[in-house]
Amino acid sequence: MLLRMSTLFVRTLREDPADAEVPSHRLLVRAGYIRRAAPGVYSWLPLGLRVLAKVERVVREEMAAIDAQEVHFPALLPREPYEATGRWTEYGPNLFRLKDRKDADYLLAPTHEEMFTLLVKDLYSSYKDLPLALYQIQTKYRDEARPRAGLLRGREFIMKDAYSFDVDDAGLERAYQRQREAYQRIFTRLGIDFVIVSATSGAMGGSHSEEFLMPTAIGEDTFVRSAGGYAANVEAVTTPVPDALPVDDAPAAHVEDTPDTPTIDTLVAVANERFPRPDRAWSAADTLKNVVVVLDHPDGEHEVVVVGVPGDRDVDLKRLEAAVAPAAVSAAGDADFATRPELVKGYIGPGVLGRTNTGREDAVRYLLDPRVVAGTRWITGADAPGKHVFDLVAGRDFVGDGTIEAATVRAGDPAPDGSGPLELARGIEIGHIFALGRKYAESLGLKVLNENGKAVTVTMGSYGIGVSRAVAALAETNHDEAGLAWPAQVAPVHVHLVATGKDPAVFAACEELAADLDGRGVEVLVDDRPKVSPGVKFADAELLGAPVVVVVGRGLAEGVVEVRLRRGADAAVPQEGRPEAVQVPVGEAAGHVAELVAGLLAP
Amino acid sequence: MLLRMSTLFVRTLREDPADAEVPSHRLLVRAGYIRRAAPGVYSWLPLGLRVLAKVERVVREEMAAIDAQEVHFPALLPREPYEATGRWTEYGPNLFRLKDRKDADYLLAPTHEEMFTLLVKDLYSSYKDLPLALYQIQTKYRDEARPRAGLLRGREFIMKDAYSFDVDDAGLERAYQRQREAYQRIFTRLGIDFVIVSATSGAMGGSHSEEFLMPTAIGEDTFVRSAGGYAANVEAVTTPVPDALPVDDAPAAHVEDTPDTPTIDTLVAVANERFPRPDRAWSAADTLKNVVVVLDHPDGEHEVVVVGVPGDRDVDLKRLEAAVAPAAVSAAGDADFATRPELVKGYIGPGVLGRTNTGREDAVRYLLDPRVVAGTRWITGADAPGKHVFDLVAGRDFVGDGTIEAATVRAGDPAPDGSGPLELARGIEIGHIFALGRKYAESLGLKVLNENGKAVTVTMGSYGIGVSRAVAALAETNHDEAGLAWPAQVAPVHVHLVATGKDPAVFAACEELAADLDGRGVEVLVDDRPKVSPGVKFADAELLGAPVVVVVGRGLAEGVVEVRLRRGADAAVPQEGRPEAVQVPVGEAAGHVAELVAGLLAP
Repeated sequence: MLLRMSTLFVRTLREDPADAEVPSHRLLVRAGYIRRAAPGVYSWLPLGLRVLAKVERVVREEMAAIDAQEVHFPALLPREPYEATGRWTEYGPNLFRLKDRKDADYLLAPTHEEMFTLLVKDLYSSYKDLPLALYQIQTKYRDEARPRAGLLRGREFIMKDAYSFDVDDAGLERAYQRQREAYQRIFTRLGIDFVIVSATSGAMGGSHSEEFLMPTAIGEDTFVRSAGGYAANVEAVTTPVPDALPVDDAPAAHVEDTPDTPTIDTLVAVANERFPRPDRAWSAADTLKNVVVVLDHPDGEHEVVVVGVPGDRDVDLKRLEAAVAPAAVSAAGDADFATRPELVKGYIGPGVLGRTNTGREDAVRYLLDPRVVAGTRWITGADAPGKHVFDLVAGRDFVGDGTIEAATVRAGDPAPDGSGPLELARGIEIGHIFALGRKYAESLGLKVLNENGKAVTVTMGSYGIGVSRAVAALAETNHDEAGLAWPAQVAPVHVHLVATGKDPAVFAACEELAADLDGRGVEVLVDDRPKVSPGVKFADAELLGAPVVVVVGRGLAEGVVEVRLRRGADAAVPQEGRPEAVQVPVGEAAGHVAELVAGLLAP
Repeated sequence: MLLRMSTLFVRTLREDPADAEVPSHRLLVRAGYIRRAAPGVYSWLPLGLRVLAKVERVVREEMAAIDAQEVHFPALLPREPYEATGRWTEYGPNLFRLKDRKDADYLLAPTHEEMFTLLVKDLYSSYKDLPLALYQIQTKYRDEARPRAGLLRGREFIMKDAYSFDVDDAGLERAYQRQREAYQRIFTRLGIDFVIVSATSGAMGGSHSEEFLMPTAIGEDTFVRSAGGYAANVEAVTTPVPDALPVDDAPAAHVEDTPDTPTIDTLVAVANERFPRPDRAWSAADTLKNVVVVLDHPDGEHEVVVVGVPGDRDVDLKRLEAAVAPAAVSAAGDADFATRPELVKGYIGPGVLGRTNTGREDAVRYLLDPRVVAGTRWITGADAPGKHVFDLVAGRDFVGDGTIEAATVRAGDPAPDGSGPLELARGIEIGHIFALGRKYAESLGLKVLNENGKAVTVTMGSYGIGVSRAVAALAETNHDEAGLAWPAQVAPVHVHLVATGKDPAVFAACEELAADLDGRGVEVLVDDRPKVSPGVKFADAELLGAPVVVVVGRGLAEGVVEVRLRRGADAAVPQEGRPEAVQVPVGEAAGHVAELVAGLLAP
């Protein structure tokens, strides 16, 4: 495979694109791998498409290795199946919806659980047909509110989505584990570092799920891990519930005027000064912060809800959204407060909140952090301007309508499994596996006859890899200031071969070497542009990021060419500094380079 | 590559699907290659996807051979570029349109001229960058009024679309010819019979175009050809214009009562009886039929038009539509007649038609068949019930507002290039190549600097192959009553290996043979189902259509297996009758079959 810079459809850019915030986006555009067609919608240029194809090949090989069979579904799908599972509405504005010329409703599929379920229902009817695993590599659509970071969060993107079908839970667990192991092999082969974290299932539903995250500071997902091995997406972290305390040990609640306490800190200072606790000082964690939010439910209900969290934490809207899925969450606006005059901004307390608490059917629903157990003693709003209530005891003076995991998670919080304090990190979601269970099979009536001739509902799993996102993830972790630096397994070509100067002998030798390498199965991009300066050619080679760079130039007079690695051969990330260039006799160059490439490609 | 019927995701059907009219649709569904997801929208099952991948590979190889570079564009595209070229409206209801969450207009691309033009404009700026040829294999959308015949006319389908960019007309012509030759090689390699016909460009625009049609009786396209080598899509056929005649030789026009002439035949009979011509008898070709149609223009204008054709022909709406593109054509309805009271149904004549003819600005536009030259003498309507006018002479008594190619083409009509009488045939459009010229480059401002530093508009070509349609076309011409019968090049597997009976020794021998073939690089589907009767297995093998069928069964006791071809090795269509089965010693079977397959795959 021989490409030429003189004819390759590529233009490298010296300037970063204006809309690019992250390195992968900047570099993939600058190096001519992708090009923006619309917000969150990208075209693949020849070099980008080559990387994509290599990623797809690895995915296909590992899917085949676990006997998953490849199929291909349409992107344009009718509304009905998604209506049957509720996702037509649950997806909200994330779903691209359209009508055909007969005014029938269609969608551009964000994922295909419904269609796979229906297809298996169509074809299969017996437990003997199972287990079954199917997958596709296919274009997906999601109308993101904020498409960003190039391929990392697009509105049209390429997914590998696999689905497993089993007759019982043990079968699902086996299928889930096989996919999990295949994912580990895929990301390992691609050279993508990953962490497997517990996750929430969101609009997907199902019993449990895990995400494969690639750790990186620019990641959109925050996850936690403990030294003892616990790892979870921040949305999935659960709070260890403290033991309940006796409710009668505290003094009676008392309302106090608390002027000039605009912040939690000022409130705590006033509390310690005017109403000191005998046992210890009040802290922000003793205040109960009641945050007004709005849940937009799929059925159209717009519900004002109050979430109570300790004052040293905030409500994490992403955690809240995961906890109330499929409802969408937003901060309450003035219009919402107007419908609830009992909510006194800045001084909201349990006195007016919660059906359970107030005994009022029309009370705002009040959801409490799991730390607010019976017997805990709080300073909180007294539902009147300038007033707070002290020594308000949970379970004695107030209750909630339920608990909710919505408070921010902080470094140092205990892992729920007791495996030590949590540390926080950020990552990019590169895979997500779901033990769906019977949700889709039940909604769409997928049953098979079991050994006793009885119809049983099939249990399913769903397993996704962001294939186009994986290309960006690779670029994100394989670059330096000069440009991309691909691992050989996914590089668009193995060797970037540069001819410098104007000497026709140099160009001839370069062509000969290119042909020799091509004959040995090495993929070569030869920079044969006659009038381009060596500096520009070297800069392009570094920007494009082929793992081996060979320069045929002045050294040819002494019978040598220069061979250098774009990055350290063994480094997961490019080496600091430039790997040393090696001078190789021109007659041995093809053999030397071919061996080098074979070494880089070896598992 | 080894597949197993026991686990392969496939269910063969004995019944034809209710909506399937043509063999390819029936058989691809019955054999479990594809499955309908919505009208005109299909899912690909494992066997179908394998055939598709083989077709795609041939296309990619031949595109690479002419230096076309592969890219990949989104399907979801913004409105603006299509607005700039006029196609946002010209495509009418065939275009799937949608809005995103910000209410911005998008479309699902039916073809990508705009985006390729803009991408090249983005990247390239000099004549030195050209010539350039790019292509993609990509999912396209078209909201067909009548999706039909499975993959043959779908609403979501897979296309190879290529685009060429040249600085001058000679360059475009070279690019066009290279694509044309690549297409010939592609279809030849795929074993698809084809005819190249002149075509109209429709909504695509451009100077000239040709279609690759696969001849078949179920084809939607009608084409003509002459013994002398002329070939054209029926929409593109032009009528040889007869010489004009003197206008003064005929008697003066005279209006006559013609009761009881409901048809052209009765009118001609009355004419010959009551107003005989001295030179020869009147015939239907002497009557002028004026047909009222409606043109819906892209700008929204709904125009009533009358087309005049000789009475022995009809107006061919497809030819008319091609002639008036991008306007859409339909027959006039009662509401249209109501707006034009001067049109007396059944008796419409030139007297009230045409701005040129009547001198009236508000007259209905009157377009005439090219045969209606000056001096021709007609019987036609007299614009009053029960009355016709005789001896109405074109150029003396009436004129039109222009000529139009809209009359039906008939077998025996002369070829426009004088190469003899035309014969008519039907075909499926499997490819279409367009010399676009500068239409898109002009609309979107794609210019490069030429050798003299002057900005010149680039000239383009556009070249499409219906890739998913090609799979259906192959099925359409490679089947018999029992099922599909693939050419080896595109068959999902090379060998269908059947184990019959219940003898474990048979199944063991079958497995051994399968492994041996797999080791030799032969693609095998082994029917290892333990409890399925030989009859069902044979029927499935014939339905699925692998080119070689090997049976391990009773013969094993005598040390032989049976090898037979699904179809004659050299026949373009399956042989009449069943090719003879050959008994091969089991020890030689793998070698024999591998050699047979290699022979079938040889070019």
